[in-house]
Amino acid sequence: MILTPLRLILHSMAIENLMSAPSAGLAELYDGFRQEHLVALWTEIGDLMPASPRSRAVPHLWRWREGLLPMARRAGELVPVGRGGERRAIALANPGLAGAPFATPTLWAAIQYLNPREDAPVHRHTQNAFRFVVEGEGVWTVVNGDPVAMRRGDFLPQAGWNWHGHHNVSDTPMAWIDGLDIPFQHYADSTFFEPGPDEVETRDAPPRSRSERLWGHPGLRPLTHLGPAPATPLLAYRWEHTDRALAEQLELEAEGYPATVEPGHAAVRYANPATGADVMPTLRAEFHRIAPGASTAPRKETGSSVFQVFEGTGEVSVGEAAWRVERGDLFVVPSWQALTVATDGGLDLFRFTDSPILEQLHQYRTETGEAI
Amino acid sequence: MILTPLRLILHSMAIENLMSAPSAGLAELYDGFRQEHLVALWTEIGDLMPASPRSRAVPHLWRWREGLLPMARRAGELVPVGRGGERRAIALANPGLAGAPFATPTLWAAIQYLNPREDAPVHRHTQNAFRFVVEGEGVWTVVNGDPVAMRRGDFLPQAGWNWHGHHNVSDTPMAWIDGLDIPFQHYADSTFFEPGPDEVETRDAPPRSRSERLWGHPGLRPLTHLGPAPATPLLAYRWEHTDRALAEQLELEAEGYPATVEPGHAAVRYANPATGADVMPTLRAEFHRIAPGASTAPRKETGSSVFQVFEGTGEVSVGEAAWRVERGDLFVVPSWQALTVATDGGLDLFRFTDSPILEQLHQYRTETGEAI
Amino acid sequence: MILTPLRLILHSMAIENLMSAPSAGLAELYDGFRQEHLVALWTEIGDLMPASPRSRAVPHLWRWREGLLPMARRAGELVPVGRGGERRAIALANPGLAGAPFATPTLWAAIQYLNPREDAPVHRHTQNAFRFVVEGEGVWTVVNGDPVAMRRGDFLPQAGWNWHGHHNVSDTPMAWIDGLDIPFQHYADSTFFEPGPDEVETRDAPPRSRSERLWGHPGLRPLTHLGPAPATPLLAYRWEHTDRALAEQLELEAEGYPATVEPGHAAVRYANPATGADVMPTLRAEFHRIAPGASTAPRKETGSSVFQVFEGTGEVSVGEAAWRVERGDLFVVPSWQALTVATDGGLDLFRFTDSPILEQLHQYRTETGEAI
Amino acid sequence: MILTPLRLILHSMAIENLMSAPSAGLAELYDGFRQEHLVALWTEIGDLMPASPRSRAVPHLWRWREGLLPMARRAGELVPVGRGGERRAIALANPGLAGAPFATPTLWAAIQYLNPREDAPVHRHTQNAFRFVVEGEGVWTVVNGDPVAMRRGDFLPQAGWNWHGHHNVSDTPMAWIDGLDIPFQHYADSTFFEPGPDEVETRDAPPRSRSERLWGHPGLRPLTHLGPAPATPLLAYRWEHTDRALAEQLELEAEGYPATVEPGHAAVRYANPATGADVMPTLRAEFHRIAPGASTAPRKETGSSVFQVFEGTGEVSVGEAAWRVERGDLFVVPSWQALTVATDGGLDLFRFTDSPILEQLHQYRTETGEAI
Repeated sequence: MILTPLRLILHSMAIENLMSAPSAGLAELYDGFRQEHLVALWTEIGDLMPASPRSRAVPHLWRWREGLLPMARRAGELVPVGRGGERRAIALANPGLAGAPFATPTLWAAIQYLNPREDAPVHRHTQNAFRFVVEGEGVWTVVNGDPVAMRRGDFLPQAGWNWHGHHNVSDTPMAWIDGLDIPFQHYADSTFFEPGPDEVETRDAPPRSRSERLWGHPGLRPLTHLGPAPATPLLAYRWEHTDRALAEQLELEAEGYPATVEPGHAAVRYANPATGADVMPTLRAEFHRIAPGASTAPRKETGSSVFQVFEGTGEVSVGEAAWRVERGDLFVVPSWQALTVATDGGLDLFRFTDSPILEQLHQYRTETGEAI
Repeated sequence: MILTPLRLILHSMAIENLMSAPSAGLAELYDGFRQEHLVALWTEIGDLMPASPRSRAVPHLWRWREGLLPMARRAGELVPVGRGGERRAIALANPGLAGAPFATPTLWAAIQYLNPREDAPVHRHTQNAFRFVVEGEGVWTVVNGDPVAMRRGDFLPQAGWNWHGHHNVSDTPMAWIDGLDIPFQHYADSTFFEPGPDEVETRDAPPRSRSERLWGHPGLRPLTHLGPAPATPLLAYRWEHTDRALAEQLELEAEGYPATVEPGHAAVRYANPATGADVMPTLRAEFHRIAPGASTAPRKETGSSVFQVFEGTGEVSVGEAAWRVERGDLFVVPSWQALTVATDGGLDLFRFTDSPILEQLHQYRTETGEAI
Repeated sequence: MILTPLRLILHSMAIENLMSAPSAGLAELYDGFRQEHLVALWTEIGDLMPASPRSRAVPHLWRWREGLLPMARRAGELVPVGRGGERRAIALANPGLAGAPFATPTLWAAIQYLNPREDAPVHRHTQNAFRFVVEGEGVWTVVNGDPVAMRRGDFLPQAGWNWHGHHNVSDTPMAWIDGLDIPFQHYADSTFFEPGPDEVETRDAPPRSRSERLWGHPGLRPLTHLGPAPATPLLAYRWEHTDRALAEQLELEAEGYPATVEPGHAAVRYANPATGADVMPTLRAEFHRIAPGASTAPRKETGSSVFQVFEGTGEVSVGEAAWRVERGDLFVVPSWQALTVATDGGLDLFRFTDSPILEQLHQYRTETGEAI
Repeated sequence: MILTPLRLILHSMAIENLMSAPSAGLAELYDGFRQEHLVALWTEIGDLMPASPRSRAVPHLWRWREGLLPMARRAGELVPVGRGGERRAIALANPGLAGAPFATPTLWAAIQYLNPREDAPVHRHTQNAFRFVVEGEGVWTVVNGDPVAMRRGDFLPQAGWNWHGHHNVSDTPMAWIDGLDIPFQHYADSTFFEPGPDEVETRDAPPRSRSERLWGHPGLRPLTHLGPAPATPLLAYRWEHTDRALAEQLELEAEGYPATVEPGHAAVRYANPATGADVMPTLRAEFHRIAPGASTAPRKETGSSVFQVFEGTGEVSVGEAAWRVERGDLFVVPSWQALTVATDGGLDLFRFTDSPILEQLHQYRTETGEAI
């Protein structure tokens, strides 16, 4: 039996009718579906199976200096921190996601704010988390009793199900960015939570955490920790190392050696020293430095990202959106929307993504270049 | 600074106030949040970070004989199959998921129906898929040109991005179950789709597919296929093998050897012969046989499952729900809801789950036993 | 400082002198080395670091019908089997390996012989082992209490540190081939051995072992065995499956589909159903079928192989050696010696190798084609 | 048929006879074996399959100050370095290994010596290698054109098949230790070798190599190098990091936190930053610091080690042997021989082993404690 072109046309017409103006018989069928908690694929397939990803999330920019930071300060005046609310954290809510406090379908990004001498109570949860500090210092995050200093430029991962609280030992408030996989675990129904003591176990405030003293030596592993490590045991990735790594990539490029992603674009990935893999099973974090006068080729990826400008200014375009960005600004890149960055004076960007999810489940794709 | 109990109480009261009756200052702050696309964690944390998973999905049962099958037959009379709608498939829509055609947050389950001599057009998509046949035969699914017979009891995986279409060479209609990760890939914004020819490449209808002739020999790999295999290259897992494996587990149990999950409960997992892992990166499939008079201990897992009764009758309870089930009936088990099964006459159950997602991302937990 | 060509020549001359006719000073130095248990690299480098592998092992053929089998029969008359000697096994001793009972530097191959009603006592050792049966039947190998029938064409792996003994329940003697990694573990100083009961735990002689009943179903894993499996849990790979897999590869080739290694050359690898990897950490086993009139392209590999002719006749060349082979004959292929096989009437070949060692340690290389 | 005790005794007697005083028939059989290149297992099993590893290698100590160093200096006067001999390296020859230049069955250890302004010519080989510097400086090893400074305490891995040569830019000679898997690859017949230019590609002598500038930042990976990495891309592990890591482990221990292997025993493993695994597929390297007054519990392992004393003095026992050791001394620990170390004044020990071979092939075992 061969389908003639006419038959094909009739098919298409028939399908169209099914979706727009169903007959009486069809209407009855669809009523039956509803009663039985059923839905026809043929009326939904356009949304469910597009030719390429069409995220509900949209590109969006949140301003730091005039938006997030003043809001957080005001919350610092009005909202206490303690058991129940747990954290004075204000989440980016992607305008495409119907008011949910999710920066992207998978990623949570929030500004957290702690007043002088305040504590954020101890708890643990299955969600993977990290903090990134764009400015300020004075807070220690205490992870399983190990106090970890937080300072400008530091990346502080803290994998699921570890006890943690924060304390501000200084006389100034401090704000930073929290990144988590809350939306993903909410979606996957995998979240457990347990409250701990209302106060952190220790008010010690050493410059280096015990985790750094054990794990912060390049290429060296303590013999006492050779077992499996799905998440990084290193609780602080210090700015001095990140800065130096990026500077050296650009120097190597200038000396004629391959070291950068593309001309003027240095980048490092934060890695689990026990495996070389991403710091946490669901979250990837990177730092990108775009040299003065450089720009990046357009790039699309499946999965989503959140960027924060660490230093400098530049022009960013994501899909149809474009912004001039400056220190502290946060923006999101939804799945399969092309990203480009350009800068006159140089731009330092922190980034985190859900790429480990996509990669491990064999759903990661990327395209780079002018043609995309 | 020590937090006294009184202070803690005040904290809790303060948090409660924040959520119920905000002050004028707070109301203004929340307005500001809304304008800036921000949301406070402290008002949402109860929903976002529960003590244990609280899925929006609910336990639900769909009847086969009096529900799904008559609906599918009626659709067979009213709805053509062809390009655009692609498949005459009717999806289970979990009552907790607001009308979305998703059996669980991650899993798609549908009954598909093909009339005598009908074709379902060729396409490919990143979604991982399989078919499971509870009754009937006569349809061949053609995967990359390889025709695969579909018969009662067969499990027919077909991983993402392979071309496939179906053709019914018989004089009777045929219905079967499709399982896919459509909801997950819709959520993760990772879906690509491409239409192929409107007709299948071949109307050959051999009893065994080429994939089975290459890969269907226990413990033997063709030397021509030694590369990586994120999904199974074996396109048909035949009922005769599944049935025999389960029967032998129960025989071994009767002879006094450990072979069953628990007394009277035999079970196999469909595996990728190239890796021993799950058949597809996002989907696990299993077959369970509960012997006459046996029952299963309560079990909770993170992640969700869909079951179909293949044969027999029994009593199933999922969380607060309970049903008497029979051949063809489908039911869902949401995350962290306890499942028990009991049967007088014996019960054969096909099951598929999103466990590979949970396991690979280190979010899988389970509890078994009377106490849960 | 630039090395002139003259200087280079002088260097080479100097080196040559060092090795052939050392001066008085040098002779004294070398004496000193000997006293201090030291050796100069420069006098040994030619042997230690050749341009490509130069094995001490040589290609060699052992005849079955007129060599191994009569020898084994005679041993059956003269030598008892029991505790101490453990097995009536006669090992192939590669003529290049100075009398050591090693077929190649890493591999042990022996003919084992058991008289009617005889037992080989129970023991366990870290060495990985298998049996392959070129003819006969009547012996059961009992592995951890599970009796496994041995019949013509069967491959019977048995990984290190499992208890095992054999018993002949028949009225005829039986001979078969044992393959082990004895030379490798002897070299690596990793061998442990423990004697068990002098008699096998059971004289049951079922047609199928319990391991086959649990694991012998294509693509199906018992849910009770999901843990790590460095070695295969399947204790018998039956001839009927191997034969069918090879026949189907040649049929697929004839139908125009890619299924064979090269024209007329079908091949399967015995695989661990729990991982898809080799059956044991140090041993690979394969079965090759060369169709009548076909021949194989020359191939070199690092690492060594032992082949046994299962059926048919053919011409084999290994490096400089060449033989006409027939049923039961065994031959070895040392590292990096080119192998070709040709046959008029068809040839079935069992093969085992140390390739997993080479591959896992990133030392595997291969070259194929006329030019090598 | 039941084996009576008497029968067992007769068996054992029979076996003993077979090995000591064979009958005429047996003698004829054994002659036949020899002619056919066959060997009976029952006469060899005691050597081949001992109850636990019995290495031919023996514990042995080579003195640095009065042995190796003077020998190397004398070789520096008498022996040129150049193409053919390739390196002025003098290998430790384990007294148990019949004069072969092998420290253990798998490991090569040699002292290499380079005069002022000398070059060691460029070549590459499949053997994995490293250098460790117990004293001195002034030589750069150039790996694929990247000059890597060698200084006291540095560990400088250089995986198989990378081009490399050395040049001494200083006015003093320099000696260091080379470690390789030459014996293993010689055994496995996997070695390839290729000569390169007679002079190193560059006489640049920068303090840090390009590899360190790309990879030497703790927990940070360059985005340009995300592919597979069977061996470490980091070419220098500097003493300052090793020293600090060890010091901090002992400090943490003193503060009451678990950080050391046992009281007063700090240890790090050199790791591949791209995987967290061993630096090379066949070689493990570690550094151990025993605090003043501390000692180690006896430990046995399968596989072998070579130690070099980096600093301090102490008492070492290996199996039956015992020595007082000092700076530069090298000693070997054969498989399954118990090692203990004790020190009054503190002892720093560099160590390398073949453990990755044993571990990857599932032949690694260890026992620790007073009872062994």
